Amino acid sequence: MLNEIEISRAIIEEAIKDLLHNLNGEVVIAGGGPSGLIAAAYLAKYGHKVAIFERKLSTGGGVWGGGMLFPRIVIQEQAKKILNESGIKVKKRGSLYVSNSIEVVAKLTSRVIDAGAQIFNGISVEDVLIRQEKVCGIVINWSAVEIAQLHVDPITVGARFVVDATGHAAELCHIVQNKVGKLLTPSGKIEGEKSMWAEEAEKQTIENTKEVYPGLYVSGMAANAVFGGPRMGPIFGGMFLSGEKVARLIHKRL
Amino acid sequence: MLNEIEISRAIIEEAIKDLLHNLNGEVVIAGGGPSGLIAAAYLAKYGHKVAIFERKLSTGGGVWGGGMLFPRIVIQEQAKKILNESGIKVKKRGSLYVSNSIEVVAKLTSRVIDAGAQIFNGISVEDVLIRQEKVCGIVINWSAVEIAQLHVDPITVGARFVVDATGHAAELCHIVQNKVGKLLTPSGKIEGEKSMWAEEAEKQTIENTKEVYPGLYVSGMAANAVFGGPRMGPIFGGMFLSGEKVARLIHKRL
Amino acid sequence: MLNEIEISRAIIEEAIKDLLHNLNGEVVIAGGGPSGLIAAAYLAKYGHKVAIFERKLSTGGGVWGGGMLFPRIVIQEQAKKILNESGIKVKKRGSLYVSNSIEVVAKLTSRVIDAGAQIFNGISVEDVLIRQEKVCGIVINWSAVEIAQLHVDPITVGARFVVDATGHAAELCHIVQNKVGKLLTPSGKIEGEKSMWAEEAEKQTIENTKEVYPGLYVSGMAANAVFGGPRMGPIFGGMFLSGEKVARLIHKRL
Amino acid sequence: MLNEIEISRAIIEEAIKDLLHNLNGEVVIAGGGPSGLIAAAYLAKYGHKVAIFERKLSTGGGVWGGGMLFPRIVIQEQAKKILNESGIKVKKRGSLYVSNSIEVVAKLTSRVIDAGAQIFNGISVEDVLIRQEKVCGIVINWSAVEIAQLHVDPITVGARFVVDATGHAAELCHIVQNKVGKLLTPSGKIEGEKSMWAEEAEKQTIENTKEVYPGLYVSGMAANAVFGGPRMGPIFGGMFLSGEKVARLIHKRL
Amino acid sequence: MLNEIEISRAIIEEAIKDLLHNLNGEVVIAGGGPSGLIAAAYLAKYGHKVAIFERKLSTGGGVWGGGMLFPRIVIQEQAKKILNESGIKVKKRGSLYVSNSIEVVAKLTSRVIDAGAQIFNGISVEDVLIRQEKVCGIVINWSAVEIAQLHVDPITVGARFVVDATGHAAELCHIVQNKVGKLLTPSGKIEGEKSMWAEEAEKQTIENTKEVYPGLYVSGMAANAVFGGPRMGPIFGGMFLSGEKVARLIHKRL
Amino acid sequence: MLNEIEISRAIIEEAIKDLLHNLNGEVVIAGGGPSGLIAAAYLAKYGHKVAIFERKLSTGGGVWGGGMLFPRIVIQEQAKKILNESGIKVKKRGSLYVSNSIEVVAKLTSRVIDAGAQIFNGISVEDVLIRQEKVCGIVINWSAVEIAQLHVDPITVGARFVVDATGHAAELCHIVQNKVGKLLTPSGKIEGEKSMWAEEAEKQTIENTKEVYPGLYVSGMAANAVFGGPRMGPIFGGMFLSGEKVARLIHKRL
Amino acid sequence: MLNEIEISRAIIEEAIKDLLHNLNGEVVIAGGGPSGLIAAAYLAKYGHKVAIFERKLSTGGGVWGGGMLFPRIVIQEQAKKILNESGIKVKKRGSLYVSNSIEVVAKLTSRVIDAGAQIFNGISVEDVLIRQEKVCGIVINWSAVEIAQLHVDPITVGARFVVDATGHAAELCHIVQNKVGKLLTPSGKIEGEKSMWAEEAEKQTIENTKEVYPGLYVSGMAANAVFGGPRMGPIFGGMFLSGEKVARLIHKRL
Amino acid sequence: MLNEIEISRAIIEEAIKDLLHNLNGEVVIAGGGPSGLIAAAYLAKYGHKVAIFERKLSTGGGVWGGGMLFPRIVIQEQAKKILNESGIKVKKRGSLYVSNSIEVVAKLTSRVIDAGAQIFNGISVEDVLIRQEKVCGIVINWSAVEIAQLHVDPITVGARFVVDATGHAAELCHIVQNKVGKLLTPSGKIEGEKSMWAEEAEKQTIENTKEVYPGLYVSGMAANAVFGGPRMGPIFGGMFLSGEKVARLIHKRL
Repeated sequence: MLNEIEISRAIIEEAIKDLLHNLNGEVVIAGGGPSGLIAAAYLAKYGHKVAIFERKLSTGGGVWGGGMLFPRIVIQEQAKKILNESGIKVKKRGSLYVSNSIEVVAKLTSRVIDAGAQIFNGISVEDVLIRQEKVCGIVINWSAVEIAQLHVDPITVGARFVVDATGHAAELCHIVQNKVGKLLTPSGKIEGEKSMWAEEAEKQTIENTKEVYPGLYVSGMAANAVFGGPRMGPIFGGMFLSGEKVARLIHKRL
Repeated sequence: MLNEIEISRAIIEEAIKDLLHNLNGEVVIAGGGPSGLIAAAYLAKYGHKVAIFERKLSTGGGVWGGGMLFPRIVIQEQAKKILNESGIKVKKRGSLYVSNSIEVVAKLTSRVIDAGAQIFNGISVEDVLIRQEKVCGIVINWSAVEIAQLHVDPITVGARFVVDATGHAAELCHIVQNKVGKLLTPSGKIEGEKSMWAEEAEKQTIENTKEVYPGLYVSGMAANAVFGGPRMGPIFGGMFLSGEKVARLIHKRL
Repeated sequence: MLNEIEISRAIIEEAIKDLLHNLNGEVVIAGGGPSGLIAAAYLAKYGHKVAIFERKLSTGGGVWGGGMLFPRIVIQEQAKKILNESGIKVKKRGSLYVSNSIEVVAKLTSRVIDAGAQIFNGISVEDVLIRQEKVCGIVINWSAVEIAQLHVDPITVGARFVVDATGHAAELCHIVQNKVGKLLTPSGKIEGEKSMWAEEAEKQTIENTKEVYPGLYVSGMAANAVFGGPRMGPIFGGMFLSGEKVARLIHKRL
Repeated sequence: MLNEIEISRAIIEEAIKDLLHNLNGEVVIAGGGPSGLIAAAYLAKYGHKVAIFERKLSTGGGVWGGGMLFPRIVIQEQAKKILNESGIKVKKRGSLYVSNSIEVVAKLTSRVIDAGAQIFNGISVEDVLIRQEKVCGIVINWSAVEIAQLHVDPITVGARFVVDATGHAAELCHIVQNKVGKLLTPSGKIEGEKSMWAEEAEKQTIENTKEVYPGLYVSGMAANAVFGGPRMGPIFGGMFLSGEKVARLIHKRL
Repeated sequence: MLNEIEISRAIIEEAIKDLLHNLNGEVVIAGGGPSGLIAAAYLAKYGHKVAIFERKLSTGGGVWGGGMLFPRIVIQEQAKKILNESGIKVKKRGSLYVSNSIEVVAKLTSRVIDAGAQIFNGISVEDVLIRQEKVCGIVINWSAVEIAQLHVDPITVGARFVVDATGHAAELCHIVQNKVGKLLTPSGKIEGEKSMWAEEAEKQTIENTKEVYPGLYVSGMAANAVFGGPRMGPIFGGMFLSGEKVARLIHKRL
Repeated sequence: MLNEIEISRAIIEEAIKDLLHNLNGEVVIAGGGPSGLIAAAYLAKYGHKVAIFERKLSTGGGVWGGGMLFPRIVIQEQAKKILNESGIKVKKRGSLYVSNSIEVVAKLTSRVIDAGAQIFNGISVEDVLIRQEKVCGIVINWSAVEIAQLHVDPITVGARFVVDATGHAAELCHIVQNKVGKLLTPSGKIEGEKSMWAEEAEKQTIENTKEVYPGLYVSGMAANAVFGGPRMGPIFGGMFLSGEKVARLIHKRL
Repeated sequence: MLNEIEISRAIIEEAIKDLLHNLNGEVVIAGGGPSGLIAAAYLAKYGHKVAIFERKLSTGGGVWGGGMLFPRIVIQEQAKKILNESGIKVKKRGSLYVSNSIEVVAKLTSRVIDAGAQIFNGISVEDVLIRQEKVCGIVINWSAVEIAQLHVDPITVGARFVVDATGHAAELCHIVQNKVGKLLTPSGKIEGEKSMWAEEAEKQTIENTKEVYPGLYVSGMAANAVFGGPRMGPIFGGMFLSGEKVARLIHKRL
Repeated sequence: MLNEIEISRAIIEEAIKDLLHNLNGEVVIAGGGPSGLIAAAYLAKYGHKVAIFERKLSTGGGVWGGGMLFPRIVIQEQAKKILNESGIKVKKRGSLYVSNSIEVVAKLTSRVIDAGAQIFNGISVEDVLIRQEKVCGIVINWSAVEIAQLHVDPITVGARFVVDATGHAAELCHIVQNKVGKLLTPSGKIEGEKSMWAEEAEKQTIENTKEVYPGLYVSGMAANAVFGGPRMGPIFGGMFLSGEKVARLIHKRL
């Protein structure tokens, strides 16, 4: 006979066990969009304990809707390898490749989980943990609490490295700028995303993927937002390669 | 050199080609939650032209949040096969199996796409198409239009069979009840979901998976909502088996 | 040195331990207003395992604001004993007694916890658990999820008896009426609260405190709402005595 | 027999064909208010490929409501010619001319379409496309997506020249100021609209109609907002003449 | 020199003169969508004093957005004449004709005004005027007052005949049903729109265009909503012919 | 020297003294619109202790905005006397009289206060007080509490007679109908307002001004709403005469 | 027989006649709170053509609610004369006088109208009219349009002097500061209200009542907000005297 | 017999008596969260007349929800004494102590009331009272008025010392900064809270508990927000000790 109470117990115990296990990790990634997912997949593959904290219930960020609700995304030759590895079908059109945006989210998410990284969804990052001028963790809360505007204190999660993969908003970088002050950018501040220029954006996203404050890396759209690169077009190659790069950079330091 | 205009063209042309191709299908499924996804996967596997129309941008319905935001779901022995086939890891706990709810969505969605079914996201079903007392299609619009409360007319999509996999809301059944009248239920009306009783719910969901009006099938939570079964607990075996059953029933008639 | 991670771990582990312990209790009370608090205090004093699930973060329901934001409440002679036992100061005015409404909430809540009952706050009751025409538990979710309108499944909590102490709304009784049908009221339905008449209301609240469906009791304002008694004035004697009575009735059956 | 599916196909194919055709145009105008419509009409008349992207479903901007919901607008002698050419009736009152504001929108819109320009409605401009310090296109999305606050990426539309005809808001100029920096205004920034002075405003609107950044022109109310002219009264002569002027200026460079 | 005060005076006097002139008309049409516009155009052509009261600032109802934001509409052969007369371009596709939805609104609106009918926009119809069981006018208010939820009384406009051209909502018919009771429908009540079936809908819309209560006619989508015809597809032939028919029917009685 | 604390004390003490004095009155009027104000003025003139409780901060109900925001109201010959007595200027137009709607509110309110009645503003009536099938008071709360959706209990105010002068909404009658059941109307229920017919409405409003449940009278628009009279036009004679009549009726019984 | 159409005509014609008459006045006052009302009363008494434009439907600003919803206000000896002249009862308490806040609004409003000033309610001031660095009018729109966020252009009203009596917000001064720049304050900018100090505030309000930009005066709370005086307590003497002073100052220049 | 009117009278009179008594106190505390409650408890114990004004209906601030809705809080050894004195149970875990967050609120609140301090709930602090550069009171209003956005003036409460215990927001300090200017902080401005570092935060909160402007003290989270200390983790020792310290500091000066 099915026992509802045992079902409740199983769900809570299994979920809490993983949360407790990840309260202190090697790498914590804020944001489960494309660059966050790929960063997690590579970091886990390299053998690290890595967790993604995503504000929404679903992963994938802005990928689901493709371009203007037409559910397709485009990538260039260089990033094709990452889609191939993830089992995502690509269709060649001239020098570009087109994929189903829904498939992209589903398969990158599957890949992250299969690689052994944990995804915690429905959780917002409210602050970072700083000790002696180094980011060493994040401060989290249920997104539902945030949306419902309840007055509830957050809890903390420790990590050796934190990745800001929150897209345009570059949320963690804004927190650090507001609370700590100086970032490792030319002006010491968030430079702000420039207008769209796909080719330049693709290049610069990868260049701008780096440490922005001791212990804090930036990847994907957040990289251009913080270091002043152009906005990306509805093309995701740079985003994927940025995720791969941030994983490589952090791997070297662990 | 990357050409933004070619990117736009690629995205629009590829997405519209698939939409036009699916304007007239064999089976149209309203709702990309667990039973809708599984129904689509099996129907596509059986060789049919099938499309899911999902209101949100993400598939997976209520699965993402597991139970009460603890991202795990529970299934019984009988439904284990479906998770196995989809490559979803299960963990045994007594007579139950626990899975990561995020993995469940990602891998079921991947499976649907790999099987050849199309998923159209961000699209609401506003009405059904009826000819001579048979449902023969659906009437769709962008969900964004609906949320933004714009006054914009919908367009139509034809199909030999339509599946209402919209969960508790049983949206298509409500439309048919309001506009046409009599359903194939004991009272001729939507019976309404009963209070939770996991064991009974699991059994009845499968029994209640059937044709509810000529051309219109009901699956998953919508089945119990329409035929008066109990609410399901945070256990998804019945939902998965319901999706499989509706695919089998429709396959026989195609 | 203070370790943030240990703080997180302590908070989660202690809270979850109590939640798991209460997944299957003797009595579950929906609503932490005055009648729910008193019912819990007495039931715990009688030695039973009892838990309150309260939608808001704070207990006390409508007591905080006294009458029309003047933070005082009034009780009659008969209920004075309950305030005295709880250490709440009362001031005599003619045949009435006046207390500070904030003190009433604080001390009743303290009493409940000291008596050994558990209070779970920020949790909504979405449904009841029914087996063979008997209520045997409740179905819960975070209130934040409800307010934020996220699509997340609930979990279940079992109990031998459930008390609907949700005030005017009589929420559990409405669920049972909508999903199951017949209640143990004269009409078999929720009779609806009548217009205010303090004296009658006080008397009837206590009379109406009883079992309203197998396994489900009703207390406080919900009792008059369900059995058709008058609305109570800003006087709380009947509410307190109702809480005491429901505890006594259930105690006899455990 | 009427075939719903053929209707859907006809609508989608015809609309998408025009969208694809206009992904790369000569002139793109943001805003379908009076100056945008007139600019489009003249540019199309001069033989250019021109498209208007309008955020609302309806064209006409603030003209519909006349002054304070009294549906009449006023123009001076100099602009009478433009209304005459468009077949709009004018009524002389002293030195002024009064027209029905609804007729103005309807006939200007008809004229634009008859002249061969395309109007895309329900579409917001989110960003501009910049290459080597020249605006060379716009970045668009459904307005419904914007209103519904969905997270969906935009697509791009190329053009040799872009006109900011978005009224007071001067939306494109704000984007360029925020993302690129220096404009071709006295201060290098948006100067801000001054208080109302009809006569001066009418004159200055026309003077201020010019290139504000390489590739980007400004017309109508946006011209005064950007170059610091006074706010226009409920008189539209300057607005119409500004639309004509911007068309002339761009025509010379094509 | 431009005198702002003279501008204000011109706008108010001209608009109020037309409003006062139309306080007592022959025909008042509620709703400036396609059937209302065409009805007005024909009635004015037949020489009657006719006014449209439209809730929004723009005319055209749901036509602007075409089907699902693709700005094209489809008509059949029979209604082509009405578009031709209005100067609207049509493109043949099989047995159907496609037009630009923006052009349709602009040119129908122009035609109405040129024919001599008045359009009052931004005005809601709150009630009808009834004397001795005959509708003899409407009760109006600013839509802005309605949206802003201000408590402001309406004023009245008299007419020998009133047309409910408010689309699906059939607003005037609902008012009459709620306040007066019996309509001239089979059940005496609003029958409610049925599910979509384009061909039947087109036919029935025209049949259902008739008097629904003494003095009150119904046209366009409202006709099917009231007399129980199917929902129209994104095809507008029936709507146009319904507008023409209602004009003919009323003309005979004036 | 000005002492802020003395100012606070003066305000609170004076206001509370009047509230306490009116906790038990002869007549309580719900609604400070035109019929409520006039009823209060006459009752106070007849020497009775009377209090108005008005939900908004301002008295005057829908009079302020005149008709459709044109701040004038119209009355007939019969009601002229009431305006004259109140010092309100009237302007003759044919058989009608026009007044400034702002002046009407200001002077009726002044008259009520000068006559010795109390007005309590910003207070909502949540329920009535009933003893032995007779209304004998009202249950009040701050409107701010209601708007802010705070959970705060109300307090009670006693009276020998209560007048429902809440306009269309007939709020007290709805409460009595929902909680008690039978009203003294033909059907025993609220009959509902009929469509507008100024002449009939004016007559019937006065006829319908009577006792609708023991202890509860109805006046002004509420009278027609409850007894099924037509909606009034933007003419206020009947409303004023209704206020005078209800005062006369109650005066006879005190 | 009552003719609804004549009622409509009477309301519109009478209201519009007064609006047209006041399109060009001597003094225009923005805000119908206490200082605006008193300023209007004195200016009209001095024989000038004066109009108040008030955003809300009701006059009286924040006076209605007294202090913290206790409907009483306090004044000092010096301002008693103004209440006496207006027929408002005052009650002596020590050195202070207390009045009924509702009576204050009603009688000041009556006084303004009897003195011959016009009040236009439900109208917002969007901008000022400036010619050669002098304010010479205001730019108005329906408040309903503003609340409903409709895109509708305003109209203009001319005046030799304009008074900003908009309270804390000092709305016109903010417009002038933002659009023109320098004000006649010590810093050339709005200084901002200081924290509450009743005695100082009372004194300074009167001192600060002066011309703040050529053609623009400031009175009441706006005076302290602009010239940096302290916030007033719930005492209105200074406000009343400020209204009287601004009238005197402007009278001298007319 | 129960008399509703006597109940109303008892509630109002008792509540108002206490409010009047506290219009002029020794210490006024803005905010009834943990540091405010403890400050009040100690100040009352030291024999001072102290009142808390709390915006919400419930006291306890963010404590109710524990950490991330897990209702437990953590403290260190040093603060254990305060919990012990309050009768709050603590559970040792390593060097930390865990308590039930609901119990903490209930018992601290009880302690405050038993110590003789008054708590006024549902009241917002809008401004401070300043005389000769010293804070000497606060300006209050119903929170319901604030939430409902009604335009109602506040009243004032005097005190020799004011404590800003409003948490992160440091509301009173912001008011003083905006209205007065210079604070007693290093920069003369609010320094802003730094990122989380539990150990440092705990220490600095206590250090930062001091006078921030003559007459105004700051305690708890507000102390770190104003003096630039790190954000506290979900650990409350520092908060409690800060409340104790502010009481001690003020006690010395009374």
